[in-house]
Amino acid sequence: MISEKYKRMLGQKSVIREISEYGAEKAKEIGYDQVFDYSLGNPSVPVPDEFTQQLIRLAASEHPGAVHGYSPSLGIPTVRETIAASLQRRFAVDYRTEHIFMTSGAAGALAHALRAVTTDGDEVLTFAPYFPEYMPYVNTTGAVLKIVPPNTNDFQINFAEFENMITPKLAAVLINTPNNPSGAVYSAETIEKLAQILRSKEKEYGHDIFLISDEPYREIVFDGQQAPYIAKYYANTITCYSFSKSLSVPGERIGYIAVNPECKEAETIVNMCGQISRGIGHNCPSSIIQLAVAEVIDLVSDLSVYETNRNILYRALTEFGFTCVKPGGTFYMFPKALEEDAVAFCKKALKYNLLLVPGDTFGCPGYFRMAYCIPTEKVQRSLEAFKQLAQEY
Amino acid sequence: MISEKYKRMLGQKSVIREISEYGAEKAKEIGYDQVFDYSLGNPSVPVPDEFTQQLIRLAASEHPGAVHGYSPSLGIPTVRETIAASLQRRFAVDYRTEHIFMTSGAAGALAHALRAVTTDGDEVLTFAPYFPEYMPYVNTTGAVLKIVPPNTNDFQINFAEFENMITPKLAAVLINTPNNPSGAVYSAETIEKLAQILRSKEKEYGHDIFLISDEPYREIVFDGQQAPYIAKYYANTITCYSFSKSLSVPGERIGYIAVNPECKEAETIVNMCGQISRGIGHNCPSSIIQLAVAEVIDLVSDLSVYETNRNILYRALTEFGFTCVKPGGTFYMFPKALEEDAVAFCKKALKYNLLLVPGDTFGCPGYFRMAYCIPTEKVQRSLEAFKQLAQEY
Repeated sequence: MISEKYKRMLGQKSVIREISEYGAEKAKEIGYDQVFDYSLGNPSVPVPDEFTQQLIRLAASEHPGAVHGYSPSLGIPTVRETIAASLQRRFAVDYRTEHIFMTSGAAGALAHALRAVTTDGDEVLTFAPYFPEYMPYVNTTGAVLKIVPPNTNDFQINFAEFENMITPKLAAVLINTPNNPSGAVYSAETIEKLAQILRSKEKEYGHDIFLISDEPYREIVFDGQQAPYIAKYYANTITCYSFSKSLSVPGERIGYIAVNPECKEAETIVNMCGQISRGIGHNCPSSIIQLAVAEVIDLVSDLSVYETNRNILYRALTEFGFTCVKPGGTFYMFPKALEEDAVAFCKKALKYNLLLVPGDTFGCPGYFRMAYCIPTEKVQRSLEAFKQLAQEY
Repeated sequence: MISEKYKRMLGQKSVIREISEYGAEKAKEIGYDQVFDYSLGNPSVPVPDEFTQQLIRLAASEHPGAVHGYSPSLGIPTVRETIAASLQRRFAVDYRTEHIFMTSGAAGALAHALRAVTTDGDEVLTFAPYFPEYMPYVNTTGAVLKIVPPNTNDFQINFAEFENMITPKLAAVLINTPNNPSGAVYSAETIEKLAQILRSKEKEYGHDIFLISDEPYREIVFDGQQAPYIAKYYANTITCYSFSKSLSVPGERIGYIAVNPECKEAETIVNMCGQISRGIGHNCPSSIIQLAVAEVIDLVSDLSVYETNRNILYRALTEFGFTCVKPGGTFYMFPKALEEDAVAFCKKALKYNLLLVPGDTFGCPGYFRMAYCIPTEKVQRSLEAFKQLAQEY
């Protein structure tokens, strides 16, 4: 009586994991320093010192019951209030405590948001290139994820394909900007156009269509820019945030859902998340971690290394003959492979100890992803490897 | 397109919450000290100092990337290894790293275990009185929870009713010993008989039947006894543990699944949990909390106050005319109400500022639950209230 559904998933080998395992083996052989591992999106900059100090202060508290005690299922009220106030201050959206639901990172946020606004047989659309975990996130809810083909000119939205794929079954659109894997930041124009289409389809079909906005990279935007804040453009927006990248704490599993107060059923959706939580065993992130992030709510790690790395890599790779949309944020870039088959290309790259991930994984064959959340000196040392790889073509 | 399934759940008012809200209101009026709140199972003893010291040491680590970085989806390997070794040492079951899956408390453990070993339409049996959250835990998986009526003589298992309710659809039996709400600890005889029945039904039906053992109270057993370790009695046992009660850290959401190595598909089940996790957005408990519990793996809070409270309450209540099975562990007791309608009885108790929970909530009408995880001096002061309440009858 073992569940065949989950047993079958065991057979699906992850390409990212395969490459990263190859890299680990190679590192044993030639030394970790000689392997240029661009395969994993693991933040490389340290946790802010102030976060550490707050965590220690909380752990040493005289009231451990308050620090380690049960959190209400929606999250600790003062933490929710702090987050709402911060979002209000930064983005001028009128969030209050009752619009915030604390989650185990963005994964927890998406699991709840998707269950709240879809039912069996509904459709969810997302845009290639996309984070491959969206597949299990959506498909285990009973809804079906459909992928809109990419706009490879600039990795904004391919609107022609998008409009063709909308049906009355469309319950939600899932976006990720700044984007993993492309590094693209959706422009205000893109978001405005997306919002207009959704509003017109809501009217046409007579039902809500939710915009689920996955924003773990919101704070990593380059050239002094800011990512447009999605909820300002569309009432039925559910923002899914994670502190993993902004504070370099991906293992602490801390994030939140913020439901746009302009959404008709905003508070109902937050309360429903509490009910959804009961079924999936979520029950809030760690209480001490909730309290710690609230203490440093507007703080981020020193993220400047990501921009430095982007600049070095973008300049060098384009010089070596790669075609690449210049990333506006995140710590990813997504160049075109130098042959049609990106898997073959990434295998060739292994010869030069370069660990790259083929775009096939992200629904965008012919491209490859580089996660440049690695030390700058290693980025510098890797350039010669890219040069040699390019010379093969 | 909001999910009606979860929206409907919002209407279901929790009796425990209603009583506890009444208590909070009353406390504002007459002072917190005057309200005898036996409604909530929130540990009252402090976190062990050694846990706090380890947490501070980890937070202050020179390698925050290691402390706050991504944990593999099955949990941090060294933590899993430490847990396996501890279980092996304590219970002489041959667990290894690959049998352990780290979870967000017992709720997370149950969510994964239930999904791993049931499919749509399967049946899961549990025994009244039972923890009411088992309902959403099971029923959101696609399986159906059925409740075996209680054995009110001693709150061991009602085997006659149990055997009548077994059908070929039985995928799992869910037990909780030491038990919330009865405080009963299943005897070796009870467990042996249960195991025999399950083995014989496995043979008859030609499929596995899993025993899912929910053990958050394993360390809280009185009179110098130990709870028999369930997995020693039955091969297909999945143990669901939480550190919430043993270390008084319920807000940290930390626990694990241990699959009995004698279970044919033990490692497959653990790996499946990693896949299940992808769909429900679980992705491990906090990494620093995982590391901290591993450092104090065989330590527990000073739990002796619970036994002290049990002794005081059991002696007094039986003296006042209550009928009660003497709890062998936990911090609950489950006396018979002094009238048939336990809800009416608990309402009467409110007059004496006693917050009690009717047994109806636990599938056992006519009884009430007391969570005596409160300071002993308050227990002492509450006795007069129980006496007066009893005198009404």
